Amino acid sequence: MDALKARIRKEGKNLGGGILKVDSFINHQVDPVLMDACGREFAARFAASGAAKVLTAEISGIAPALTTALHLGVPVVYARRTRPITMSDQVLLTLAPSHTRGQTVELIISPQFLGPDDRVLIIDDFLATGQTIMALARLTQAAGATLVGIGAVIEKTFEGGRDVLAPLGVPIEALAIVTDMSDGRIIIRD
Amino acid sequence: MDALKARIRKEGKNLGGGILKVDSFINHQVDPVLMDACGREFAARFAASGAAKVLTAEISGIAPALTTALHLGVPVVYARRTRPITMSDQVLLTLAPSHTRGQTVELIISPQFLGPDDRVLIIDDFLATGQTIMALARLTQAAGATLVGIGAVIEKTFEGGRDVLAPLGVPIEALAIVTDMSDGRIIIRD
Repeated sequence: MDALKARIRKEGKNLGGGILKVDSFINHQVDPVLMDACGREFAARFAASGAAKVLTAEISGIAPALTTALHLGVPVVYARRTRPITMSDQVLLTLAPSHTRGQTVELIISPQFLGPDDRVLIIDDFLATGQTIMALARLTQAAGATLVGIGAVIEKTFEGGRDVLAPLGVPIEALAIVTDMSDGRIIIRD
Repeated sequence: MDALKARIRKEGKNLGGGILKVDSFINHQVDPVLMDACGREFAARFAASGAAKVLTAEISGIAPALTTALHLGVPVVYARRTRPITMSDQVLLTLAPSHTRGQTVELIISPQFLGPDDRVLIIDDFLATGQTIMALARLTQAAGATLVGIGAVIEKTFEGGRDVLAPLGVPIEALAIVTDMSDGRIIIRD
């Protein structure tokens, strides 16, 4: 994903504290062509996984999860942070600490859309501490579904998320891997 | 958009009070192939608009807005409901009453991504009372940008949104038009 790495180098901003600002192409303004390329790449990397559903969390996971699902030809489900009035009373719910929000958020899924027959690929914009993705994995387990893989557009290795997720025992793919953001740098693995 | 109308007829649920539940293919679980087809249709209908940016509101507008932007080959911006810590302090903000949430929500955009040179196409999942789309139009005006069109995946005519938006003087396109939900019905215009 050279196009993604080049874009991070060009437009990514190091806000300090490990916060990487990419809101000009991923999570406020979105470059749909780049997101489509990310989705195509995830679909290729997980082609053998047998994934039958893509799972993500609102909000900024939606774009890469949608394009991945499009290229895999499977539905995507996004966990909600608040229960809309259109959702049934019986829900799957877990809590996740949000790094960039500084609070704990709920992640909610209707059991109608995640069940024992589902083979689930989790896609999110960032793999940082791994807490959001671990929460999605808990929802997958609670539904009795099978987790088959985890994909993140950008991984920040120095926040340790990959180690947190390792016990899940599934392949973890990141399209751009940032290894160091100390002293204002943004170092991306070649 | 016969595929969309067929899907609403098959899976849409009338929850009463004008609430149309379509969370099996639009706003919880999403059918990416159908959303891609919706995006292609919007891109065709607004091909002559000169739209250079697609604008939507999180959360459920993101999927159709992203696919529309993909087919137009332009960026998409989604207005946030809360200001993430990665967003600058100077923002464009407006308030919108949320029909399905029963409260007023903030819609926030970084002025970095919406400015006087932008020709803006607003895309959302629903056109109901028109309040969310009108709020996005206010943000467009506040940024000094030019609104060139409005597209909704599903319009509910009986909530009057089209009349609310008419003074904006731009084309309004809906891919499925629901004209009556009284007495448990879901009547879609052919």
